[in-house]
Parts: sequence; structure tokens; C-alpha cells
Amino acid sequence: MSVGIVETKYFQINEEMKLECGKTLKNVQVAYETYGNLNDKKDNAILILHALTADAHAAGKHSEDDKKPGWWDNMIGPDKAFDTNKFFVISSNVLGGCKGTTGPSSINPETNKPWGLDFPIITVSDMVEVQKKLIDFLGVKKLTVVGGSMGGMQALEWSVNYPDMVDSAIVIASTSRLSAQAIAFNAVGRNAIISDENFNNGNYYDGKLPEKGLGIARMVGHITYLCEEAMHNKFGRDFKGIPAFDFGIDFEVESYLDYQGRIFVDRFDANSYLYITKAVDYFDLPKKHGSLKNAFEKTKARFLVVCFSSDWLFTPNQSKELVKALIQAQKEVSFVEIQSTLGHDAFLIEVDNQTKIIKSFLRGKEE
Amino acid sequence: MSVGIVETKYFQINEEMKLECGKTLKNVQVAYETYGNLNDKKDNAILILHALTADAHAAGKHSEDDKKPGWWDNMIGPDKAFDTNKFFVISSNVLGGCKGTTGPSSINPETNKPWGLDFPIITVSDMVEVQKKLIDFLGVKKLTVVGGSMGGMQALEWSVNYPDMVDSAIVIASTSRLSAQAIAFNAVGRNAIISDENFNNGNYYDGKLPEKGLGIARMVGHITYLCEEAMHNKFGRDFKGIPAFDFGIDFEVESYLDYQGRIFVDRFDANSYLYITKAVDYFDLPKKHGSLKNAFEKTKARFLVVCFSSDWLFTPNQSKELVKALIQAQKEVSFVEIQSTLGHDAFLIEVDNQTKIIKSFLRGKEE
Repeated sequence: MSVGIVETKYFQINEEMKLECGKTLKNVQVAYETYGNLNDKKDNAILILHALTADAHAAGKHSEDDKKPGWWDNMIGPDKAFDTNKFFVISSNVLGGCKGTTGPSSINPETNKPWGLDFPIITVSDMVEVQKKLIDFLGVKKLTVVGGSMGGMQALEWSVNYPDMVDSAIVIASTSRLSAQAIAFNAVGRNAIISDENFNNGNYYDGKLPEKGLGIARMVGHITYLCEEAMHNKFGRDFKGIPAFDFGIDFEVESYLDYQGRIFVDRFDANSYLYITKAVDYFDLPKKHGSLKNAFEKTKARFLVVCFSSDWLFTPNQSKELVKALIQAQKEVSFVEIQSTLGHDAFLIEVDNQTKIIKSFLRGKEE
Repeated sequence: MSVGIVETKYFQINEEMKLECGKTLKNVQVAYETYGNLNDKKDNAILILHALTADAHAAGKHSEDDKKPGWWDNMIGPDKAFDTNKFFVISSNVLGGCKGTTGPSSINPETNKPWGLDFPIITVSDMVEVQKKLIDFLGVKKLTVVGGSMGGMQALEWSVNYPDMVDSAIVIASTSRLSAQAIAFNAVGRNAIISDENFNNGNYYDGKLPEKGLGIARMVGHITYLCEEAMHNKFGRDFKGIPAFDFGIDFEVESYLDYQGRIFVDRFDANSYLYITKAVDYFDLPKKHGSLKNAFEKTKARFLVVCFSSDWLFTPNQSKELVKALIQAQKEVSFVEIQSTLGHDAFLIEVDNQTKIIKSFLRGKEE
């Protein structure tokens, strides 16, 4: 069952936002969607927190003839993992994004031109502050936060920064801080964008877009979202046709990455890619709080930590570090490592397993 | 002990080379070095086969004030793993390279300009054919072949194609065929080069070089040569200075990759990078011979297969596949998995372990 036809709404933050970098942002706009209804006690809300390049449109369709539903439609809806018969589900686009929430492609009110690289550096904490304004505006009192990958980082930050509001946190395929290797992959992606002949120091909105650089960044990303086993199963060493003996597309895996790179360019802003990957690189709960145990000291949420055996970008060991610190801080935590051959992407695909686990966890909230 | 001052020599192949792609190459030049002396029976030769971006200069120095010795100097020399008191060690630059052997930056005799992308696609088998001409020219009768990474592919190809000549083969951190993931990383590197604004379809020798693209390719390469553990130990999440809140170099790992990218541009040709990675992608012994066991059927060499526990580019499992097929084909094979935290790069660094293992294996040759 689907949530049906939904609409992206927009919320304007009137007060100035003070950012972690020290700068401020005025007139921040937030794109969001909601599914289901807020109850009278205003305590049945679930905030969906998206990963690197997704948006507020997490479930349902925007029109009858919409080709694709929202990005987590298989998890959100009547009787689904996030059951809209029971819960008021909220999804918003992150600060720095390019899907309706203020970001580097938005108009800088002081110049009446897109911000470009004049947009201030934002952090995961800044993303959460913006979401907090939205949640308050919607009148929510108690909240479940949930997210995969970068979404899990936001869920962690929420539980740490707003302990009285967050009663449950579901952290999927995530970490308290990226590994050096993951930072390295992000650095390559940013380097490819900044090196693109059309990048023009971020001022490309009037001209040609840095398509090649953004495409390369996406190719690198997709390698890390899959894993060798997934790639082997999906493509192996199969050729698209016969060996071409030139530098065009030869192998199926090349064709896949090329396609992913090309379609990404149509839906994502290169500057947003820079800002959001940087926010992810900077995220470091242990450093910010002295230790991960310290970070969790004041949290009041029940935690569910889910990871996938073949995820090498946000590894099971990183999830286990979260669990260990939560236990040290004497917090309630459930942990599941799902056996999967799908790599990091599993959080978007392994619906049945996640549904069972999440439903069971959320039943604790109903009691 | 060093082999001392050495000189790169050049050998010209007078006959036309017929390549695997069907095209031919005239006047192929081969850059090579030799260390130690060929014995009277001409059976004490060891052919060193280099990886992606190395050259003929494997040991010693070119002059007294040379800053760095050859790329495998820690393994080649008197009393070293490849003991030049006993063996006649030969090292040559591969076909398609840019270090003295004919490649895309060489002059096309028909146009008197650099070949660029008019250079024919070459394969690992073509590299071996060129080396065979050199070995015959040097009067060698029996040969040990040895190489790490792409060098191991050449060693395998040698043992399969020239069973009567190769009496020992040492295959280090290598495979009978790349994984889909490794092809994907090579595809990203090629894409970055081809997307560079200066690439000009490979005709950049008169103008600006595709430095940014080649730098990005090298960054991606270095991520795969290390492993997460090595990166964690080397850089962790350390900042170069303080968080800069901009898109410059922030983390130590970014600084390392940026540096590796920039110095690579000074020493390597972007077109050679395209040709050589393509040769590596195409290499597929099982496909060529029906099965890996079939490939080894006619070999007469003793094999030593060495891999490193943390190598995720040329994995221990891939080495074990080689060993399994050799055993099935009833060949003599020794296998060692060296416990290492250095990733694929270990074959250039883990000198002590490799020396012990290789010396022991080569004693079998002396007997």
C-alpha cells in the first residue's frame, strides 16, 4: 500500500540561523513532506533523515502518472516498516541540498544571484538545527529519528542534541565518524568536480554545468555503495558487446557506472555535492564530545542500530562501536547485523529484513 | 648492498610485431636494465616484470647523486631476494609505457608525431611478446619470471605462453583476472583523464597536459593500493591544520592523495595510463583458455604465489584461485599469504618476509 499522492511543502525559517562554522544564514527554506497524521499527544512522529543525495520526497507519488515513487517508498506507508496508519512521518531535504531546502544553488539575498561557493560550510549539526525548526513548527513533542548512511549521522546528532525530544533513534548503515578511506573517496569526488573545466569556482549556474566532474564523483560513489560481491553478482567481467579495443564502454560495470554518472547530473547540483560530502567528512561525535560514550551520556532514546555484513563504506565494526559506547553509557540499544551481499546500498534494498526489525522495535514505542 | 651505478639500455625490435588486437607495430624499442651476470649455461636469468606505472629502472642508481634508487632496489642486489651474485636480473619497461619502451607518447613513424590514441590497444600478452624478443636477444635460455600486481599477470602469461623457457614463476599480489570492482576503479581513472579539458583526444603533447584528470586517476589508484587499516594507521581522521571550513586540503589523507596526484603528473603519461589500465582490464586467463586449469596445463614452471592479507585490490582469494587451479593441473606450487596491514602496496614494502620466502623458493632453482 502506498501513501498515495503527496505534495512537497515549504517552510520558511524567519529567524537567522547561526551555523557551526560561525557564519549565519537568513531566510532558510525547508522542503518537506508528511505522511499519516499527528496524534493528539503529538508523540507519534517519525522523522526520516536522508542520505547524501536524496530529498524530501520519501514516499508516495507527486501525481498519478509519476514514474517513480519517493526514495524510501518501500519502507514508508500503511502497514510498512514506518506505518503511516500509526505514525506521523516527516521527511525533509537537508540544509545545503538542492531539492527545495536552502543550499548553494539558492539565491543569496544579498546579491540576488545563486550562492555558489559563497554559501557557508554547513555541518550535520546545522542540518539538525534546521530540522528542529521544522519539527517545532509542526507541533511535534516526541520524535523517532531514523536514517541510513548520512541519515544515521543526523539521527545520532538529534538524539545527542535533543535528548528530551527524541525517544527512539534508528541508525542504519551509519557511523559516528567516517573512516580515512571514506574521506579519501569523498575527496576524490570533490576534486573531480572542482577540476571540471565548467566549474568556474562554483559560478556555473548561468552556463555549462560541471557535468563530467560530477559524473566522476558519482561513479566513485557508486563503487563504494556496492561491494565487490554485489558487483561480481551484478556484472562480473561481462562485456557489453565484444571487446572493442578502444577506450569506450567495454564492460557491463563500466556501462553501469557511466549511466549512473550521467543521470545523476540531471538531478543533482555539483556545489551541493561539495557541501554535503564536506559535512559528512567533518561529522565526528567522539571528537566533539571527548568520547563516544560521553556523546551518548545525556541521550534518553532507545536505540536500534542496524548494519549490513557487506557494507565496506559504513562498516559493521563502526556500528558495533556505536553499540559498545551506548552500552558503556548504559543506554537501551538493539543491534542487528543483516547478512547481505548488497554492500552499503542494502539499506535502500533489504526491505523485508529491515521491516521486520524496525516494526518490532517500534512496537516498543507503542507500549 | 646495492647493484651500484646502472644504465638503462635500449633494444630495437626490427621485425614487425603482430598485436593481439590484430594491428601491427614497427620499430618497437624496449628500455631495459640488467644486474648481475648471465652464466655459461644461460639459465640463471630472472625477469622482473613491473606493475602499472613503474619502469626498467628496478635497482641501483643512475648516478652517484641520484636521490632514489630503482623501484625494487630493496629486493634486487647482492644477497638480496633476487641475488645478483647468483642471478642475471633483467628488468624492462612494458609496451605501452612511457619510460623508454614504445608507447602512445612515442613517435608514430608514419606521421612523425606522437601516436596518442592512434597507438593500438595492447594487452598483457603483447607486453610479454616484446619481452620475449629482448630475452632472446640477451641469449637467455631458461628464465625465472617474477612480478607483483600487473607484473604477476605478465609472469603468469609468460609461464603459459613459454612453458619451455620459464622454469620458475613468482606471482605476487596478483590474479588471473581483475574483479569487477577493480575494473570499475580503472574505468573511473580513465574517465577522469578523458574528461580533462586538456586531454584533446590524446593529442596534448604540444600543449597543456591533462594534469587534473591524471591526478584524479592517481588518487583513486592510491586509495586502492592502500587499505582502510593502512589509511587509518597512516592518517586516521587527523587534520592537516585546523578545520578550514572551505574546500581546500583539510585532512591528512586529502593532503597525501593530493600530493600523490601532483607528483605523478610529472613522471607519467596520461595516454600510457589509459593503455596500460586497459591491458590489465582485458587480462583474463580463464576466459582465454577455457578455464584456469586449462591455462596451466602445459606450464613446466614451479610456481610461488604470494599474497597479502589486507590486499583488497588483488585479494588473497584471487591468489588462492591460482593455487587451486595449479594443483588441479598437477603443477608444483608454493603459496604464502603474508599477514600485512599495508594493503596492495605491501609487495613493494614487505621486504623481509618476501625476501625469506623468495630466497627459499629460488634455492630450489639452484639445486
